[in-house]
Amino acid sequence: MQIEVISSVNEAQADRFVHRTVIVIDVLRATSTIVAALEAGAAGIMPVETVLEARALQCSVQLLAGERFCRKIPGFDLGNSPEEFTPAAVGGKRVVLTTTNGTRALHKAMRGDYVLAGSLNNAAACAVTAAELRRDIVLLCAGSHNEFALEDGLCAGLIISELKQLGSVSGIDMNDLGAAMLGLYRSSDGSLREMLIRSTTGRRLVKNGNARDIDHCSQVNSSSIVPRLQGDMLV
Amino acid sequence: MQIEVISSVNEAQADRFVHRTVIVIDVLRATSTIVAALEAGAAGIMPVETVLEARALQCSVQLLAGERFCRKIPGFDLGNSPEEFTPAAVGGKRVVLTTTNGTRALHKAMRGDYVLAGSLNNAAACAVTAAELRRDIVLLCAGSHNEFALEDGLCAGLIISELKQLGSVSGIDMNDLGAAMLGLYRSSDGSLREMLIRSTTGRRLVKNGNARDIDHCSQVNSSSIVPRLQGDMLV
Repeated sequence: MQIEVISSVNEAQADRFVHRTVIVIDVLRATSTIVAALEAGAAGIMPVETVLEARALQCSVQLLAGERFCRKIPGFDLGNSPEEFTPAAVGGKRVVLTTTNGTRALHKAMRGDYVLAGSLNNAAACAVTAAELRRDIVLLCAGSHNEFALEDGLCAGLIISELKQLGSVSGIDMNDLGAAMLGLYRSSDGSLREMLIRSTTGRRLVKNGNARDIDHCSQVNSSSIVPRLQGDMLV
Repeated sequence: MQIEVISSVNEAQADRFVHRTVIVIDVLRATSTIVAALEAGAAGIMPVETVLEARALQCSVQLLAGERFCRKIPGFDLGNSPEEFTPAAVGGKRVVLTTTNGTRALHKAMRGDYVLAGSLNNAAACAVTAAELRRDIVLLCAGSHNEFALEDGLCAGLIISELKQLGSVSGIDMNDLGAAMLGLYRSSDGSLREMLIRSTTGRRLVKNGNARDIDHCSQVNSSSIVPRLQGDMLV
């Protein structure tokens, strides 16, 4: 099985996704939030690229959620903090989500045979699902403003580590960034939360009063939900 | 001091180099070879981007050296193997060098205030020189065919590790890729050579019968030579 890690949305060329399973990773916070929303009983998450597109989809049965530069968008029902996505807030509802990097990455990934949303919270479950889908895998790190983001790289390393532990997967061949991220994850033993706090996005979240999101997003394998794109909706 | 690691030539935007010291890293093999050539007494190395440019510079006082896809270029005096660059071969001579990735990276870096060539062989010396130049630092990993190369990332991590150990450097602020490469390097303890052998370029070199180059290029701090660009020549 081939595993390719891509460092940021900027680096993502759609032809690299063809015939593959793409796992989109935006740990802080889009994919962690998507996992939380489905865990809370949301009927589905529709990732859209722009605020305008999101507003056009506003209706009684859909909530609007999202952020720009780590802040909630004016007039939207929810921001991009996983803890806002409670059963009371999103249970049974569809959520239209737009974020700075994560939803862009999900749109880029749509050429893949399968598209999953991965985070530290659901890494093991994601690895199991991806292995069952029997395709080569692309781990697309959303990154931050077209640059590599540490937390997404760590999550890619964790997912590779989980894949390597599966009996059903043999002969893993990684690109160099994959080998680097696996080495980095293995060296992080027990200090993931601290590494997230020191990352560029982590520092911005702490500054904006969202430090609790980092606690949530750094919990390894706390969820068995694996969001999968069906049509234009993650379910 | 700001330290930014850039993952490949493809990612290098010239405006990021302005007012900075740029350390170009192409461990396998351009920058290791440049260090070896100057160590062997070459008068200077002129990095050029194309084979055509190199041929145009052919004359009695200059040697042509280089590779494409890890192989020596037909008609050139030397390839890109550090061990070819002996005192007998290059002592007192200028060398025109063109390689697939490294010389492209050196050309991109020319907007920097200072441009150095870094490798595992001269990492500590490179860190000392860069600190003395008192600029923010960009570590430009040449990569391989526009992709991140493991060996260059490891070298970036080593150079950051050396910079952090210098008493003269305080308050280092890294981008996320810098933090990742430092973590990766620290986790590699003692197994650099093995990691180089398993890297994409390393496997290609082994396949082409250049395994000895990996032994040479993986020797940490074996040289105190710090090639620096002056005009169009590394000296």
